[in-house]
Amino acid sequence: MPARILDGEAFASQIHLETASRVAALTKRGVTPRLVFIRVGEDPASRAYVSRKESRAKEVGISSTTLVLPETTSLPDLLRQIDTLNADPKVHGILIQSPLPQGLPNDQVYARVTPSKDVDGFHPVNFGKLLLGDPTGFLPCTPAGILEILRLGKIPTRGKHAVIVGRGQIVGRPLAVLLAQKSPHADCTVTLAHSSTPNLSSITRQADILVGALGRPLFLTKEHVQAGATVIDVGVNRVPDPASPRGYRLVGDVDFSSVQPVAGAITPNPGGVGPMTIALLLSNTVRAAEDASS
Amino acid sequence: MPARILDGEAFASQIHLETASRVAALTKRGVTPRLVFIRVGEDPASRAYVSRKESRAKEVGISSTTLVLPETTSLPDLLRQIDTLNADPKVHGILIQSPLPQGLPNDQVYARVTPSKDVDGFHPVNFGKLLLGDPTGFLPCTPAGILEILRLGKIPTRGKHAVIVGRGQIVGRPLAVLLAQKSPHADCTVTLAHSSTPNLSSITRQADILVGALGRPLFLTKEHVQAGATVIDVGVNRVPDPASPRGYRLVGDVDFSSVQPVAGAITPNPGGVGPMTIALLLSNTVRAAEDASS
Repeated sequence: MPARILDGEAFASQIHLETASRVAALTKRGVTPRLVFIRVGEDPASRAYVSRKESRAKEVGISSTTLVLPETTSLPDLLRQIDTLNADPKVHGILIQSPLPQGLPNDQVYARVTPSKDVDGFHPVNFGKLLLGDPTGFLPCTPAGILEILRLGKIPTRGKHAVIVGRGQIVGRPLAVLLAQKSPHADCTVTLAHSSTPNLSSITRQADILVGALGRPLFLTKEHVQAGATVIDVGVNRVPDPASPRGYRLVGDVDFSSVQPVAGAITPNPGGVGPMTIALLLSNTVRAAEDASS
Repeated sequence: MPARILDGEAFASQIHLETASRVAALTKRGVTPRLVFIRVGEDPASRAYVSRKESRAKEVGISSTTLVLPETTSLPDLLRQIDTLNADPKVHGILIQSPLPQGLPNDQVYARVTPSKDVDGFHPVNFGKLLLGDPTGFLPCTPAGILEILRLGKIPTRGKHAVIVGRGQIVGRPLAVLLAQKSPHADCTVTLAHSSTPNLSSITRQADILVGALGRPLFLTKEHVQAGATVIDVGVNRVPDPASPRGYRLVGDVDFSSVQPVAGAITPNPGGVGPMTIALLLSNTVRAAEDASS
């Protein structure tokens, strides 16, 4: 029996419904949640990401605008724009779309967003609260979205062994901390594996929950998967594809056709983690508006 | 052949020597590194900890004072004292000794210390920088001290499997992130196990490096240890002992006499992790003074 599909679009729709009803409650009180995107330059993928997030925001009733800055924007100019939004009480969330042009240091830019408007969860204070288990912070949307996939997909986690392949800042490391925390929807034994892990498959085959977050196209195959495991694919990799008008196509870290016959449950890609990331971004934005108006 | 002893006192002395020479360099430039301890109440263990740290500080040439506040100190009073020290340019490091009396919320108190004087590494910003791999933060002293034990003890780490038992805020979680980071003295595959981990010994017996940080007296025995593994004991547990004048004695998480015949290297306890924690505190303090005066 092939693995059950963990339908990220369907789970995201559930979250969007809840988010929309929270927006409605805020609107009744005269508060419209407002999210501002900052996009620097004209990277086609950034344009596509922002436009998808904007349209979802609109669907749930969040007011959003995008500030488009030229590729040549200097760091002081960008920081000044962020300061203006930080100071504007009508703005509840600020998202700076990555990738930034070369020369703009990510760490300085993300750390400039005031933590209470950092709905992406990228400010050091929010990462610190994550590590400390302090619920007043905003969680980064992709790891938080993965926890929601497990919860809504009714995947048991307590006492299970989760193996995360990839130790990136945005997914691998924070997800390891979140899955290990003492909580009904976590409480896993967690192994963080990566490019320096020898005999990777002997580690990944121990996983009840296996997360591919290393950024290598179709790297995880059935050899890496224990029968019945839950497999989550975070990867978004460009591979050259002359048949595509863009010249590339996007593939995950998991070789779906190899893994699906072995796994117990699996996220499709696209349609798995990606929609959840957006759902958590919008839910964070509404929480920022709730916090600011409470 | 019984395990080699990883002598924390000897490693700490090496670090103290380096710290003392950095203090000498600062003193030549007219800067005396200054560390202020805040102790609230008269908990005997707190008194002993602060007094040991003060005497080590003196040995390396750091000027230190202890502000002793009554058990009944209110939160606003404590925060005001911290603010005064934050604003004093002659103070480079501030350490609030735990445990605080009941009723004083740890998170609010530790988050009040300005991050650049937070030599304990307990501010959310410093925890966030740890998670992000940003070297401008201060690392919490115990996990940083464990990395130094491995480095000075010449324990290979790259590609090795480290298993940490215990997911606490101060040791287990941050140490997991640090041991997994891409760095010559880390780069481990890391498993974070804890009280909800079933079949714990089947996990711990995979460890090349096994860290006991769960707070259960003498919990880890030879059944948990792979032959030749490096074993680090972080535990500081009070067990009743009528023969002791204090009525208790301190024991670790590792049953040393059971584990030493099996392990390849092991920290004694006391005399392992404890002295390294103090060494890293003083080294952080000197870095705070260097940063402030550069």
